[in-house]
Amino acid sequence: MSPATSPIARTPEPPYYAVIFTSVRLAAEDEAYAAMAEKMDALARQQPGYLGIESVRSADRVGITVSYWESEATILAWKRVADHLGAQRVGRERWYADYTVRIARIERGYTLASSPRVGL
Amino acid sequence: MSPATSPIARTPEPPYYAVIFTSVRLAAEDEAYAAMAEKMDALARQQPGYLGIESVRSADRVGITVSYWESEATILAWKRVADHLGAQRVGRERWYADYTVRIARIERGYTLASSPRVGL
Repeated sequence: MSPATSPIARTPEPPYYAVIFTSVRLAAEDEAYAAMAEKMDALARQQPGYLGIESVRSADRVGITVSYWESEATILAWKRVADHLGAQRVGRERWYADYTVRIARIERGYTLASSPRVGL
Repeated sequence: MSPATSPIARTPEPPYYAVIFTSVRLAAEDEAYAAMAEKMDALARQQPGYLGIESVRSADRVGITVSYWESEATILAWKRVADHLGAQRVGRERWYADYTVRIARIERGYTLASSPRVGL
C-alpha cells in the first residue's frame, strides 16, 4: 500500500495534536453529506499545520475521524474556517444523531514496522 | 440512544488519556479475529483506569479504535496484560496488513449537546 493511498496517516515524531471526532449519522441525505465531507476534507488539507487524516464509517452509521495537526493554534484556525462555512451548524441540525469532539496532544506512537518484538 | 448502548464513550472532564489504534485488516480469519477482539475488549473493561472505548471498522477493512484511560500508567499496565496474552504478536503476524498506535492526552472536548452555537 503506497503512502499516497494508505488510510493510515503518516505523521511526524510526537508531539503533535489530534482532533478525534466520533459520530452517529442520521439515515438521511447521504449524498449531500458525502459531498460536504469531501469538500471539508479537501479544505482541511490546505490548512497550515495539517498533518493528515484517518476516517472510518461502519455500515451502522458510526464514524470516527481523526485529523492530525502541528499545534493547537492550527486546530483553532481550522475550526474558525469550518465554522464560517457553516458545516458544523448544518451537521448538528441535520446529519448527526450524536457526536463528540476531543482535542488531544499525541505523546508517542509506533507502527507495525517499528513495533518492538513482544517478549523481547 | 441510551448510554449503555451508545457507540460514543461517556468520558469525564479532561485531562485523561487515549490510545488511538488505526489498522488495516487482512482478509483472513474473520471469526477468529472477532473472537479475539471481543475477548480483549471485555478484558480491557475490567482494567483499572479504563474509561471507555469507541471502535469502528469499515467494509474495506480499515478500523479505528480509541480507548480512553485515566492515566498513562493505566495504559502501560493494560499493554503489559495484552502483551502477556500474546494478542499483539498474533495480530501483527496474522491479522493486520498495517497499523499505527498513538498515545494521546485529551486536553478538552465537547459533545453535540454541549456544543456552543455557531456564530454566537
